[in-house]
Amino acid sequence: MKYMADRKESLGEFELIQRYFSKQSVSSVSLAQGDDCAILDIPSDQSLVFSIDTIVEGRHFPSSLKPEHVATRALGSALSDLAAMGAKPDHFTLALTLPAIDEVWIKSFSESLYEFASRFNISLVGGDTTKGPLAVTLQVHGLVPKNEALLRSGAEAGDGIYLSAPTGDAKAGLELLLKGWTEGSDDEENLVNRFLSPTPRVELAQQLRAKANACIDISDGLISDIEHMARASGLMASINLESIPLSLPLSRLFPEQALGFALQGGDDYELAFALPRSAGSLAEKFGLNQIGTFEAAEGESTIKLLERGKVVAHQQFEGFQHFGK
Amino acid sequence: MKYMADRKESLGEFELIQRYFSKQSVSSVSLAQGDDCAILDIPSDQSLVFSIDTIVEGRHFPSSLKPEHVATRALGSALSDLAAMGAKPDHFTLALTLPAIDEVWIKSFSESLYEFASRFNISLVGGDTTKGPLAVTLQVHGLVPKNEALLRSGAEAGDGIYLSAPTGDAKAGLELLLKGWTEGSDDEENLVNRFLSPTPRVELAQQLRAKANACIDISDGLISDIEHMARASGLMASINLESIPLSLPLSRLFPEQALGFALQGGDDYELAFALPRSAGSLAEKFGLNQIGTFEAAEGESTIKLLERGKVVAHQQFEGFQHFGK
Repeated sequence: MKYMADRKESLGEFELIQRYFSKQSVSSVSLAQGDDCAILDIPSDQSLVFSIDTIVEGRHFPSSLKPEHVATRALGSALSDLAAMGAKPDHFTLALTLPAIDEVWIKSFSESLYEFASRFNISLVGGDTTKGPLAVTLQVHGLVPKNEALLRSGAEAGDGIYLSAPTGDAKAGLELLLKGWTEGSDDEENLVNRFLSPTPRVELAQQLRAKANACIDISDGLISDIEHMARASGLMASINLESIPLSLPLSRLFPEQALGFALQGGDDYELAFALPRSAGSLAEKFGLNQIGTFEAAEGESTIKLLERGKVVAHQQFEGFQHFGK
Repeated sequence: MKYMADRKESLGEFELIQRYFSKQSVSSVSLAQGDDCAILDIPSDQSLVFSIDTIVEGRHFPSSLKPEHVATRALGSALSDLAAMGAKPDHFTLALTLPAIDEVWIKSFSESLYEFASRFNISLVGGDTTKGPLAVTLQVHGLVPKNEALLRSGAEAGDGIYLSAPTGDAKAGLELLLKGWTEGSDDEENLVNRFLSPTPRVELAQQLRAKANACIDISDGLISDIEHMARASGLMASINLESIPLSLPLSRLFPEQALGFALQGGDDYELAFALPRSAGSLAEKFGLNQIGTFEAAEGESTIKLLERGKVVAHQQFEGFQHFGK
């Protein structure tokens, strides 16, 4: 892409950037670098699973966010999409748009990105850097044995609805950050870190593949995402509010708002999934929280909230929609 | 990604966008849509080849560019990367960042994108839309028989250097656009269209796969990109200036600048490639232009420009570098 690219400026820029993004990649697949494209050989018993996402400064993260956390939020949330499919992370591409070449920023960003990537055994295999308002687009690729990917649509009536961990913490952490939080108690730090550095449930996802009937990751909020799964499966999700797990830091610091954050907070990147009764031992092994049950749909309703067995809300929810996925 | 996403606004926005990007995809691979990821089964005799690129308003295209041309420039240049590898386009993802929901803009953009995609048999299989300064990131995926991808690095001493078509037109077209061109002679329109709607040489690339030793697409300028190929192959490119083809519109409208545009213009998305002497019939069949020869490297030099057999320039060029590819 040449238009407006000042050749001299570009040379310095891109040599600099290249230095920070040229670490050796270790991938289960063969790859050619330095060419116009990456090349990938996929084992014949595996399917490739992929997802693309952009985060924009001021829209998906506050402008004050440190580069290391821009990296962990971008890659953490992207890997969560792979986890939702039961896929094993393999490699990813990065399209990075930067307003200016700030070597300190790029160094922190790239170090954090590589460190986070190495924790999940995923390699950076290609990319593009452009000048413009700060935005990070990642496309993550994972592998899954053929015909074994977890979908949103496989839940069956009678399946338990489970959560990988309590939700709502990230929303609470964001609230703290937006109020100018920089340091504080351990509880506060726990919550803030849940926003800054989400933990994609990659390992659990591998276990779920053979057991769960359906799975989704919680990016838009627990209710909203479970409703997606219910609708895709043609069922109604019946959720018991008293079963919604709340973390101790959340309950202690936001006692009034905790349940609301847990139900509608978003940015959690936990997994919600449907387990048949026969998979009870898995739930026990991982200490998973059952929060409800999938039932046959009642008319148009796809979700029902119960408190001590009584319906407190019974409506269709409309979530935050991405096109094409 | 939930932060700052106003739920009500998002609903309207994303339903609208979904409408324009939900056409049925026809791909050689199996794909699940509506889930967190797309799923892809790749024929066991094929490699997957992919490339990610971002274009940003004001940086890679003028702000006045119509949405239909933003689409053709983004996809045309991306497909050119696949052509450079000898790959057959298969599917792509789109990460679109828009400052506001402008239905007229989105309609034109999506119609143009689908029309251009259908010409090259490539399907849109997933994406993300975000709010922010206008930018388009595409990741294109193609298939190539295993171990048959064209690389930059395979040229051999004695190979002819060929071009798929004259270069420099896109640069001339851009010059016209930057001077405010809206309509004019056929010559002018030809040049402008070469900038607005590049023609990736996808069909030629399939033919080249079995014949060419190395290939690259010209995005940064003929000299710069041939120098990349020479360096990757450990050779020196010897270019005969009098063999550089110039289009009639370019020669007529920019007689003084034509050669400079052809050598350094960029945005051409033609292919430059190395053909061994034995492949002469292919060159004849496609009417290809031989512009030089690869020779053993002389010290640090990777390129040599000749005019009537005399060296007029002999230096290392540094091109516009993308990291990681």
